[in-house]
Formats: sequence, structure tokens, C-alpha cells
Amino acid sequence: MGMNENVSKPLDRLAAELAGDMEAVNALIRERMASRHAPRIPEVTAHLVEAGGKRLRPMLVLAAARLLGYPGPYHIHLAATVEFIHTATLLHDDVVDESRQRRGRPTANLLWDNKSSVLVGDYLFARAFQLMVEPGKLRILDILANASATIAEGEVLQLTAAQDLATDEQIYLQVVRGKTAALFSAATESGAVLADATPEQVQALFDYGDALGIAFQIVDDILDYGGMTETIGKNVGDDFRERKLTLPVIKAVAAASAEERAFWQRTIEKGDQREGDLEQALALLARHGALAAARGDALDWVARARTALAVLPPHPIRDQLSDLADFVVARVA
Amino acid sequence: MGMNENVSKPLDRLAAELAGDMEAVNALIRERMASRHAPRIPEVTAHLVEAGGKRLRPMLVLAAARLLGYPGPYHIHLAATVEFIHTATLLHDDVVDESRQRRGRPTANLLWDNKSSVLVGDYLFARAFQLMVEPGKLRILDILANASATIAEGEVLQLTAAQDLATDEQIYLQVVRGKTAALFSAATESGAVLADATPEQVQALFDYGDALGIAFQIVDDILDYGGMTETIGKNVGDDFRERKLTLPVIKAVAAASAEERAFWQRTIEKGDQREGDLEQALALLARHGALAAARGDALDWVARARTALAVLPPHPIRDQLSDLADFVVARVA
Repeated sequence: MGMNENVSKPLDRLAAELAGDMEAVNALIRERMASRHAPRIPEVTAHLVEAGGKRLRPMLVLAAARLLGYPGPYHIHLAATVEFIHTATLLHDDVVDESRQRRGRPTANLLWDNKSSVLVGDYLFARAFQLMVEPGKLRILDILANASATIAEGEVLQLTAAQDLATDEQIYLQVVRGKTAALFSAATESGAVLADATPEQVQALFDYGDALGIAFQIVDDILDYGGMTETIGKNVGDDFRERKLTLPVIKAVAAASAEERAFWQRTIEKGDQREGDLEQALALLARHGALAAARGDALDWVARARTALAVLPPHPIRDQLSDLADFVVARVA
Repeated sequence: MGMNENVSKPLDRLAAELAGDMEAVNALIRERMASRHAPRIPEVTAHLVEAGGKRLRPMLVLAAARLLGYPGPYHIHLAATVEFIHTATLLHDDVVDESRQRRGRPTANLLWDNKSSVLVGDYLFARAFQLMVEPGKLRILDILANASATIAEGEVLQLTAAQDLATDEQIYLQVVRGKTAALFSAATESGAVLADATPEQVQALFDYGDALGIAFQIVDDILDYGGMTETIGKNVGDDFRERKLTLPVIKAVAAASAEERAFWQRTIEKGDQREGDLEQALALLARHGALAAARGDALDWVARARTALAVLPPHPIRDQLSDLADFVVARVA
């Protein structure tokens, strides 16, 4: 995902604001990913956790709590919780998708095996629940248990909705809420609950996380077709090869001629993909302006995310969250 | 697992005592395994949940709570929670072990695919956590989160300890506590906590579940080599083929001559298994009385389980739990 220096600045500013907290989160993650009996666990976890992800989800927890004046210390636990849940889902996703690369490195299922990825994912999920018991707030447990169920449900839905041209934008939205937005919104909502925020503030931060997560995933799905330049770079076309019905394709299918529909049926539904098909798919996306339309949807979600922030008190972090929403779509400027 | 009419009675008596509660548990399980968006989830879950497992773990929750006078209603939620966690681990275990049969039926990973088993397992695990938030007791969440971590850790440990002749009885015990006893003891302990039991009673029910679970798993591992009759029936030798270091083999390896050790190295460590090797393994187990010694260990754990019950108030359920402990080893009478 090419992000030039200019557009990465909002994330850097937020990271700088939260640098001290984030260091504590990383220390807690290292401490809690240990296992007294099974050294395989920290090996597999470290491979993924230390690969230099953006730590966007834990930052959202910290930002929500800090923005509302939470003095600590449990925002650190909650941020580590969210990163553990995220890491567990990545481990399982890579098994499900039979992925071979993640964050530019070989996946755990490739370096070790599927068994280790499944079981270490389970371990991290359990560790996440242990961590979230510590703040002693049942409502936070409820939020994160609900988010975990929504994530798994979204993944199963994607499994069955893939390869089915009947998948429409509404089903896509459910899948995206599951696979991405549920953890974003749980991060911001639980951070607000931890800070004893008002119901209005909690709702605002939920809405922000939800909209940000949806925009984020739409942009990822645009980038999977090469972004707005619509040229074939490396890693372009994974979703096409995996026959996933993402927003650009859903839009192109909705506008397809009979002949084009036959193309999508052959490549996506039947999985009969040949030399030149990805180029043809890109041409059809371009013909119907599908990537631009998807980007327009992402911009709408960004606007909703920014609007949600309006009821929150003035704070540097509030402005940084607003900039972060813009940044998410700037990846496909 | 051949259980004759005589030895199955203790379980039947407990089941009869808890029949009304158990019906409520089954109804709650059916309700909560539903998914609004992903019909694949209840399909896969029903295949496993309705295959007629013994429901031993939820019964332990109900028994502990009822024995201590808990009036309801959350013992039902807690029992369903424990069954969901158990079902989730079975789904993932069958992926990890590449199993093709479970409870006499094809496994979910065979009928659907590994992806569905991984993701539906994740969903059930999340649903379990949602359910256990409802009683509003943080300590119960703590117990079950800890048990879930111990289960996953035990599975990873088994993954790395398998195929390694250095695995000793201490490591075996850690694996068994993880894969089996952790959920037994969490079931009885959390049932006691739900009933606001005294610390002494909570400890007693934890100890009972722990010892019962260990005895149960040792007996399963004996049965995998055909039980005390040491004849080759159907399903005998799965652990041998999967190169798992279970208690009978650990005992036989500890007493092995140099020649015998070479046999175990070839078959278990190197995985070079030939025609007649299972018969040879059984002969070595018989030569060193390994199955009888393992049964002796199981009987010791049963004694501990029964002893733990002594501090609990007199109650028909207390006697049934005591009989249940005997029943567990009677499977290899």
C-alpha cells in the first residue's frame, strides 16, 4: 500500500501524541504473549506482532480514552487486548485464505504450519479475554465479546458470499462491518466506556470507529485492484484470484452488459480464470467507473466519521482523529 | 468407548437429576448458535452439538451450582458457555489433527472444509464469552478466560511434545490439564462461584474437576490402545499413528531396553511406521504393564476427586459426582 510522506503524516502525529502509551502497550503485549510451557506461542506471535504493523487499532483505544480524559492505567490493557484479537484473526485468516505473505513476510502458516496458526490464534484470543477482565468493567467485556462474534460471523459470511454474483452492497457492508469495522468501533467505543464517557460520547466514538473501519476496508479493496491508477503492480488482483465479491466488482457487476456478466460468472462464480482475465476485469472496472464510485462511497463514510466527532470536546486528539479519517482515503488519492 | 449398562448408570443418574436444567441448556444452545447473517454457522454447529455427546461438561456446571443450592437462572448460561467452548475446541482440534470421524460421524472439516471449522469455532468461542458476561460476575469471566488460555496452551504444547521421546509424565500432565482438565475444573469451579460458595467449597470443586478431568483423559489414552483387553478393535491406535506421546507409551519408553527404544524412535520420533508396528507397540505396552500402570494412575486421580468432595454439604448430587468419578475409570475395568 503506497502511502507517500504527505498522507502518512496524520498517523504519525497521532502516534507521536500517544508514543508513551504505545510503548507501554508494546511492553504489555510482549509480556502477555509469553507462555511458560509452550515456546512455540511467543515465536509465532512475535513473528506477526513485531513485523511492524501500524498498530492502528490499539491507537484508536488509546485515542478515545485519552481524548475523554482517562488517566490510566487500563487503556494500556484494552489496547493490548484489541491488538491480540486482531493478531488472532490475522493468524486464522491466513489459514482460511491459504495466504503466503503478510506485511511483506512469509505467513506463520507457511513458516510453521496451519495447526500452529489455529492454536496460537486461539491462545491469543483467550489472552485477550484475560486482559480485558482486568479493568473490571463488564460493559467492556460485552462490547468486545460482541465484536468478536461479529468478526467471526463476517468471516463466515464472506466465505459463503464469495463466488456468488448475487452478493450486493448490503451483504458487502455486513461482511466489511464484520471483518474490519467491528474491531475499529469496539476499540473506540470501549475506550470511551473506560473513560466513563456520556452515552452521547460513547455513541459518537462508536460511530467514528464504525465509519472509519468501513472506509478503511473499501480503500483496501480498491487498492487490491491497483488503486485509482488502475495499473497492475505487485499484489494486485489477490481478491480477483480468490473470487471475492468486493465493492468495485459488485458495482461493475450491477452495471454489466450480458457479455460482461458472462465474464464475471466465468471468472468469479466458476473460478475459470485465464491469462489476461485480470486485465479484462480492470478494463471493466474502468469502463463503469467502479473504482471511482467505490472511492466516492469511502469518502461518504469518512464524512460520517468526521461528523461523529463533532459532539466530542475540543482536544488535539480529536483533530488528529479527524485527519486520520481523511488519511484513510488519501491512500487512493 | 464400550461402556456396559452397569457402569453407565452413574452418568444416567446425574443426568436424570439434572434433566430439567439440561433441557434448558439445550434450548439456550440452539438459540445462541443461530446467526442472523451466516446460515453456515448453525449448520456446522448443529452437526456437532446434536451428534449426541455426553454433555459431561455442562452437567458439571449444573451439578456444582445445584449442589450448593444455587436457585438459577444463570447456571444455564454458564453450562451453555462451557459446551460452546468445548465445541469450539473440538472443531479446531479436528482441523489440527486432520480427523475424519468424531462421535461416529464425519467431521465438520470433512463435510464442509477447514475454513468453516476454524471460523465457526471462533464464532462459538465469541458466543461463549457473550454468554458468560450475562451473569455479571467478573470472577467467572476470569476463570473461563484462564481455562481457555490453558486449553490452547496445552494444545500447542502437545503439538510440540508429540513425536519427542523426551516427553515425560510431567509434560504429559501439563498437556492433559490443558486439553481436558482445564475445562472440567473451570466448569465445577465457576458453578461454585456462581452459587456464592465459600473459598473452601470453590477449591474443593476445582480440585474435583481437575482430578476428574485428568483421570478421564488417562482413561481415553488407555482406550486408544484398546483398553485393558489389549486387543485391536476399531479406532485403536489413532494416537500411535499420530505419534502422540500419551501416558502408556511414556511408561513403556521409560522402561524400554535399547532395542525397544529404537522401535519407539523409529515409529514415534521418525514416524516410520510399518505393517505390524501397532501390534508390536501393544506387545511392548503389555510387557511393561504400561496400560495397567496408567490405569493405576487414573485410579489415584479418582481417589483425589472423591476426597475433594468431602468438604461439601451432603446432597444426592455429591454422591452422584462421587460415583461419576468411579465410572470414569470403570470404562477400563
